[in-house]
Amino acid sequence: MKTVAIAGVGLIGASFGLALREAGFEGDLIGVSSPDAIRAGLRKGAITRAASLGEAASQADLIYLAQPVDRILTTIEQLAGLVRPDTLLTDAGSTKQSIVNKAVECFEASQFLGGHPMAGKESRGAEAAEASLFRARPYVLTPLAPPSEPVREFKSWLARIGADVIEMHPGEHDRTVALTSHLPQLISTALAATLAARRDPHLEQIFGTGLLDMTRLAMSSADLWMPILRTNRENVAAALDAFRTVLTDLQALHESDRLVELFEVGSAWATELRRLRCTTPADLSASQRPGSRSDSQSSAG
Amino acid sequence: MKTVAIAGVGLIGASFGLALREAGFEGDLIGVSSPDAIRAGLRKGAITRAASLGEAASQADLIYLAQPVDRILTTIEQLAGLVRPDTLLTDAGSTKQSIVNKAVECFEASQFLGGHPMAGKESRGAEAAEASLFRARPYVLTPLAPPSEPVREFKSWLARIGADVIEMHPGEHDRTVALTSHLPQLISTALAATLAARRDPHLEQIFGTGLLDMTRLAMSSADLWMPILRTNRENVAAALDAFRTVLTDLQALHESDRLVELFEVGSAWATELRRLRCTTPADLSASQRPGSRSDSQSSAG
Repeated sequence: MKTVAIAGVGLIGASFGLALREAGFEGDLIGVSSPDAIRAGLRKGAITRAASLGEAASQADLIYLAQPVDRILTTIEQLAGLVRPDTLLTDAGSTKQSIVNKAVECFEASQFLGGHPMAGKESRGAEAAEASLFRARPYVLTPLAPPSEPVREFKSWLARIGADVIEMHPGEHDRTVALTSHLPQLISTALAATLAARRDPHLEQIFGTGLLDMTRLAMSSADLWMPILRTNRENVAAALDAFRTVLTDLQALHESDRLVELFEVGSAWATELRRLRCTTPADLSASQRPGSRSDSQSSAG
Repeated sequence: MKTVAIAGVGLIGASFGLALREAGFEGDLIGVSSPDAIRAGLRKGAITRAASLGEAASQADLIYLAQPVDRILTTIEQLAGLVRPDTLLTDAGSTKQSIVNKAVECFEASQFLGGHPMAGKESRGAEAAEASLFRARPYVLTPLAPPSEPVREFKSWLARIGADVIEMHPGEHDRTVALTSHLPQLISTALAATLAARRDPHLEQIFGTGLLDMTRLAMSSADLWMPILRTNRENVAAALDAFRTVLTDLQALHESDRLVELFEVGSAWATELRRLRCTTPADLSASQRPGSRSDSQSSAG
């Protein structure tokens, strides 16, 4: 792997370039992105030069698609027929099934490796990129074929940049993130919209840090989220239904003063979530600052 | 105000003692609490000595009730007939109407001043107390009578410890916190319980910091919350209904790919919430750490 092309030099794409460099990658890093993103990427040292998608496709050993989900789908179509047979394509999109489906229409299954780094921070764009962004964070891969030599090499770089690789089926990934990422996002949005609808200035005076936690995701960009939700509609609908069922139970239990048990189930699970997966300094920096945005936003869900 | 009695030497009670000291209070600080809490309070310098409730009541110029809501209700009953007519009672309970109702049964309206400091941190107990806990945080007061001289003096101390005093009717307070504190708590609990019910180990692997934000409140103690919810049942039921209505809309909009507008309403409100009320370092320390608990928990909602 001598030449890497990064399509979408935003937070994730530029952090991938910086992480490769820090891990000892000495090859060329081609950026394919808007002029502003290219400038920021060059300034950060995340890419070495810019190129068109066609030029990059003909030169790169690895093409890393770090755009929003809808742009990744378009880029895959554009790349069909442009890519050398020994080049590996991988992506960092927040949903996997529709991207993998599109990829197998356009490429050999062995030439495409779906990916989703569960990493990010409050700020978007190459300016916010960090070489350490993927360290100790889950990085889902959804292989459809036994690993080729380029796949093995890419995975060895993921290990070197410190990512915690987990392999699963694209459908399984999408069902999982519908519950752990897309549902929390929509609940936060629904809570903020509920309070917005009251038009009561007291609501913006009399609150604690719990409300800040619970409405942080609500600040996410609709631009990023609409394609994510559109490409995971059924799983998200099922997750919303599951939540609604628990909410119905909770309302009945509240009315009859029997909430203790449900409260304890939630508390035990939330505590276990933290125990099982020790949070890293990256978790802190992503979730600590007021108004901060977590990975499920700036890495586009 | 020469002698202050603090009933419940936990995080809030002990922080009140420390804050008074730092603001220049030189009088006696009597603690009424469990032996462990008294020991911790003495060690921190938050109280100067321990006494029974009856002794404290006969000696104090100000009695500060910093217990959980259900204990405050009991303590008010116990204090009836024990308190000097020139002593002011105030509380730090998370709901106000039931406490104020109980107080007017037992005391002259001018002798009791309901209060709710919207301050706290992840840890409970006097060991975690800080003199700065109330600084730049909302401190709701629910007066029922024109301010007496002791009320004016207490309010001048709140100003000196840096609290941001907001006066409102106890019912208005309870309707507001049902939306800004109790609803977020129950939504976080419902989300954690939804994920717990799946019994899917992937859920605990494939997630970002957004899920940590959204399940932090779920770790709260049921002991603290059951009395809060019990004393605010109707407002909380109404808040849950309002949220459920928005959730129903959101589900329909998701199905028909028309979520953008609701998303933008939520995003605008969540952003405005932060703009209107600059978060302080105290907000950060409360909400930053993984597994941290915010004020709506450790100060009992």
